[in-house]
This record gives sequence, C-alpha cells and structure tokens, in this order.
Amino acid sequence: MGGEMSHKAFQDYYPDHLSHCYGCGRLNDHGLQIKSYWDGDETVCTFEPKSYHIAIPGSVYGGLIASLIDCHCTGSAAAYAYRAEGREMGTEPFLRFVTASLHVDYLRPTPLGVPLQVRAQAKEIKGRKVVVVATVLAQGEACARGEVVAVRLPMGGEERMASSK
Amino acid sequence: MGGEMSHKAFQDYYPDHLSHCYGCGRLNDHGLQIKSYWDGDETVCTFEPKSYHIAIPGSVYGGLIASLIDCHCTGSAAAYAYRAEGREMGTEPFLRFVTASLHVDYLRPTPLGVPLQVRAQAKEIKGRKVVVVATVLAQGEACARGEVVAVRLPMGGEERMASSK
Repeated sequence: MGGEMSHKAFQDYYPDHLSHCYGCGRLNDHGLQIKSYWDGDETVCTFEPKSYHIAIPGSVYGGLIASLIDCHCTGSAAAYAYRAEGREMGTEPFLRFVTASLHVDYLRPTPLGVPLQVRAQAKEIKGRKVVVVATVLAQGEACARGEVVAVRLPMGGEERMASSK
Repeated sequence: MGGEMSHKAFQDYYPDHLSHCYGCGRLNDHGLQIKSYWDGDETVCTFEPKSYHIAIPGSVYGGLIASLIDCHCTGSAAAYAYRAEGREMGTEPFLRFVTASLHVDYLRPTPLGVPLQVRAQAKEIKGRKVVVVATVLAQGEACARGEVVAVRLPMGGEERMASSK
C-alpha cells in the first residue's frame, strides 16, 4: 500500500484544464480528490468517506459510492488506454475519458468510518471506448459492484497537434 | 413551479433518524438537501449545482447527477408506495427506500450554471421493490436518464409497532 501511494496518481497526469472535476480533480478544493493507481494488472483507489457522507445510520451514501466508481473507472480507462497503446501515462496526445454510462449494484450497506478500496479492471478496450468494472470493498468485503462505459474525450489540443503534423 | 414548492417535500416526511442522508437528509448540513415533489403523476426535483460541481469545463459532475437521480428516485419510490397503499405520505408505518441498483446513461454534457430538473415515474411497484425511471433536464433538454431499483427498508419502529398490535 505504501508503495503504490508513492507513485503519481492517474489523475495527476490530467492536463490542468481537465483537472477541476469534483470527483477527482487535483485543482478542485471542494472536491473528493480521488486518486487511482496501478496494482499489478488491476487499478486501485483508496478513499475514506467523511462522517457526513452518510446514507442511513452507519452506512456510506450511495451517491458517493457511485462517484468513487465513476472517477476511478474513467481514470482507469485512461491508464488502460495508454497501456494498450504502449505509451507512458501523460504523454501526448493526452487521453482523458468521460462517462457514457454508469451502473452500480449495492450488494450490502457499506460501513461508514473505515477506508474504502475501489478495485477495477478493463473489460473491453475498443476504439474510443473502454468498459471498466469495479468492486468497492470495506475491510475486504465487497459492498458494491459497478460498471462504467468510458468514452475518450476529443481533445482540442490533440486535434491541433494532429493537424500540425 | 411556485405551487409545487409550497408543499412539503417527500424527504421532509422521513423520520429524524433517517434524515441524515448526504443527498437528501434535511438534517445533514454538509449535504445536498435534495427535495422531491409530486407534479401530477410524475415527481420532480429542482437542483442548481454549485460552480465546484464541475466535471470537464462547463459540465456538471456525473457523480452529482447520479446522486440527484439516486435520492430523487428513492424519495419517489416512497411517495409511489404510499400512494399505492392509499395512504398519506408520512403516516405510519413509515415507508423509506434504499437503492439496490442505480443506472445512469449520460446523453450529453449537462450544462453548469442553470437549475436542473429531475423528473421521475414509477415503472414497477411490487412487494418491497419499486423501480423508478428518471430524466435529468437542463433548460428543457434531456441530459441524462436513470433507473433506480429501490427496496423498502425494514423499519425497526414498524416491526415493534406491528408486534405490539
């Protein structure tokens, strides 16, 4: 865990103008600042909800769980897409994904007061689309499962770079 | 619009101990305090995201959209369930629903800086389960569609009341 945290997070490679996301933007002081990392062939994000991220007593708010899955999966989509192209994350042209669809199954109440881990894998990488599946765990127990269809954002900078070649 | 807002919101009928939800709890000072109302046979929630509820520039964060759909649909599930039982909202035994699954299709970027409207209808009411479908609109244009499978929460108070009868 210490090892993985010493590396730069996927989201820290996003260009500044795409780093204001409430879920994962490093430049959003009000946001969640979710950070995602490689862990072998999976990706992992650790997040400890605040006491006010509550749903019913003792449980984490489902909308927060959806947010963790959303941002961790779009970040993971970028990481898998870079890897599929054999490129280092953050190299140009930049790869940044947005969410086309999000599905979450809440398997059991997610306990509040402990760190959550979101683990994800790419299920499909095809053209501009990456499908990512995720599991949210609390103390090793799966509490929610999610699937995100992530679509690569057309990048103004990239288009300009492409046309200037 | 003025008329609908003058009524008590669905969430204002929740018992105090179930009113701390980050999305819709009236007792959560850090939360979104989403409010849902009847509008004929549909339900409606109006919410204006803050400037920091941003995704990519100019667009509303998808996790916030998921949260609006989530809480508006569980609130709507309770309202439809009361109506199906021919009871006034807030009468005992209390009906409070939680989310079993959430699906969101993001149709287009949702513009930031305008009020959003979430409109929902019950698609199925069966036993403890209510399936609710929702559309998120900005300036009349559908930006996201959602579906929530909501399940009625067993209520400690209700069980005690039932056993004391």
